[in-house]
Amino acid sequence: MLKINPERLLNDLKRLRGFGATGPGVVRLALSPVDMESRRWLVERMTDAGLDAVIDGVGTVFGRSRKSGPALVIGSHTDTQPTGGWLDGAMGVIYGIEIARALAENNDTSHLAVDVASWIDEEGTFAGLLGSRSFVGDSVEESIRSARNREGLLLQDALQVAGLAGRPRVRLEKGRHMGYLEPHIEQGGRLEAAGKSIGVVTTIVGLRELRLRFTGQRNHAGTTPMSIRRDAGAALVAFIARMNEAFGQLADADTVWTVGRIDLDPGSLSVVPGQADMYLQFRDANAARLRAMETRLAELVQEFNARGPVAVVLTDADEPMEPVTMDATLQAHIASAAEAVAPGQWIRMPSGAAHDAQLIAAHLPACMLFVPSIGGVSHDFIEDTAEEHIVLGCQVAATAAAAILRTGWEKRS
Amino acid sequence: MLKINPERLLNDLKRLRGFGATGPGVVRLALSPVDMESRRWLVERMTDAGLDAVIDGVGTVFGRSRKSGPALVIGSHTDTQPTGGWLDGAMGVIYGIEIARALAENNDTSHLAVDVASWIDEEGTFAGLLGSRSFVGDSVEESIRSARNREGLLLQDALQVAGLAGRPRVRLEKGRHMGYLEPHIEQGGRLEAAGKSIGVVTTIVGLRELRLRFTGQRNHAGTTPMSIRRDAGAALVAFIARMNEAFGQLADADTVWTVGRIDLDPGSLSVVPGQADMYLQFRDANAARLRAMETRLAELVQEFNARGPVAVVLTDADEPMEPVTMDATLQAHIASAAEAVAPGQWIRMPSGAAHDAQLIAAHLPACMLFVPSIGGVSHDFIEDTAEEHIVLGCQVAATAAAAILRTGWEKRS
Repeated sequence: MLKINPERLLNDLKRLRGFGATGPGVVRLALSPVDMESRRWLVERMTDAGLDAVIDGVGTVFGRSRKSGPALVIGSHTDTQPTGGWLDGAMGVIYGIEIARALAENNDTSHLAVDVASWIDEEGTFAGLLGSRSFVGDSVEESIRSARNREGLLLQDALQVAGLAGRPRVRLEKGRHMGYLEPHIEQGGRLEAAGKSIGVVTTIVGLRELRLRFTGQRNHAGTTPMSIRRDAGAALVAFIARMNEAFGQLADADTVWTVGRIDLDPGSLSVVPGQADMYLQFRDANAARLRAMETRLAELVQEFNARGPVAVVLTDADEPMEPVTMDATLQAHIASAAEAVAPGQWIRMPSGAAHDAQLIAAHLPACMLFVPSIGGVSHDFIEDTAEEHIVLGCQVAATAAAAILRTGWEKRS
Repeated sequence: MLKINPERLLNDLKRLRGFGATGPGVVRLALSPVDMESRRWLVERMTDAGLDAVIDGVGTVFGRSRKSGPALVIGSHTDTQPTGGWLDGAMGVIYGIEIARALAENNDTSHLAVDVASWIDEEGTFAGLLGSRSFVGDSVEESIRSARNREGLLLQDALQVAGLAGRPRVRLEKGRHMGYLEPHIEQGGRLEAAGKSIGVVTTIVGLRELRLRFTGQRNHAGTTPMSIRRDAGAALVAFIARMNEAFGQLADADTVWTVGRIDLDPGSLSVVPGQADMYLQFRDANAARLRAMETRLAELVQEFNARGPVAVVLTDADEPMEPVTMDATLQAHIASAAEAVAPGQWIRMPSGAAHDAQLIAAHLPACMLFVPSIGGVSHDFIEDTAEEHIVLGCQVAATAAAAILRTGWEKRS
């Protein structure tokens, strides 16, 4: 078992929290002045840990081990949501730094190479998963030219202001890495409900984001009898009821679907809505089930259009994401480490949230490790995890990392 | 049958349309510069018709007949919605002027007194039904001090700018009036559907405007299993389904209810809504049914709260309005006139929309006459009525007015 330094780990996490601290939470939007300050601090911490660290041309902080490979990349992101928690992403990056330090301090492991990454803009202030997309070689030029934050600032202008425009971008080095490990808080309540401390992630669920637009006839709410109305809002409500029934028949315990937004037009008490939009998201670890749900939805749309009197049009609100399976060998290493450090205190589970790992998994063996979120809360100022769980997670990740890297050396010799 | 002058009527209506004409519609918000221009023009037209006309201290144009009573008040409003039609309100005011002229031109009727009113701000740019409220003696001081338009302009400042502050306000003269007659476009599709030309209004429906707030728990839409969610939006949708069923059992063919606005918070695709508001309006001519609907709604709220997991709170979104019955004698006079002018072409019907008449009815015998709205459309630029129906409606109203005033003279003698 590779010993980490709990105090040093927690101190660094708390210092990182200081950049953008807002009450118990953190506001550190990608490429904002305070985010850039925190990135310069991360470069210092990585350098102190013996890594060659840079902020690259999109903002990713990457600390490369001076040891030759085989190497592991460990990391996550340090940008936050507009009302973010202090651990979401940040914890995985500080784990990486602490693991690099712990490996270097130990004679048995000082030859093992860990590169540490804080991928820029996982949260999509400008363009979600920007750093990991750039790292694996996806084109990000279009995002840089056209993506804007909520204030309308162009990504390319934000990069200019941050002094990053024109800098080289860190790219995956062919042949160097055995895999990618992303430790993260769970952001849900499953570990807590099961009374467990560590989650070994099996799959990152896929998702669909769709808009359904209902078009009827705007009318006076006093003078238009119910019998002749073409009420777009009423049709939307009836549709959701049918959809809930249909999805309930297709779902398993892990399937989730959410209507997060509804807009009635014109939105006045005295006017029968002539148009109504609903935004639907559904997620599942099973690609076939996602397709079945899409098919069922399209059938319901057809049924509604055939019946009238309100027309329904279904469109994508965002790109579909397919489920991504985590690497079985890495899963086994994390499970062994968890069993060694905290016997019986771990489970395998899917990730309901999206992460950089799902992009990187197409290019490197990838796996994630979860620690419990108190009350299942995330993307909120009150997000938190027990200190013992933070320390335990790092201990498991460090142990797994050392074991994985040793198998790489064994193969080489 | 008192002969009106169709050409003069239509000419005046078209000239009034010129104030604020926007495409086929009209934008003439109460007390705006163009509305004040149109009021000065109305004073001219009323003066030419032999009336003593003024714009009063709240903006109402009132043309008082120089004949002694018994008198009838005929009128409506000439202010419009933000995207208004050319006839809504305006038609009733021009009818009043034309009827005053027609009475004066005829030896048999030149002794009969008609006062003509254009009540200010029926549409509620600042405070709905302001002119009729002021006329019947309701206190409007609080509205004048605190009501604002959408741009935030205070009513008292708008009155100052319009040069009306400090002017006397026209008040109901005790003993002078036999009643109030408000001709209006139907604003619905009932006359058209029935193939009729004139509606004799029996009742102005009452209404309730309520807000239902659902409070659950905001959560991550990916990591929160369906089984433990407290989704405020899903609860709202389920509530509407139950409510539609319950109201369907209580309703008759004229009962209407509308969910015109829904707000999910935070309104993001990736977040289970923690709060959801719906705004509900329902209308009926029967006060007992309105109360039964309120009671049923309160029961449903109780059921939902007892069952959980989302809490519901019901509050008034606006003052309740009780149904108002139109005066039976005036109804009979309008029905006789309609049968004389257009045999078999009229029906009795409720008004689903609110009107100044519902306020005045508490102080004077009041009745309304409707002409068909093409396609049932109102509060829209394309609102229109066939010219033959506009003329026919005025002919019926004039005939009814003369008959009503004659009965007043008969009683006096």
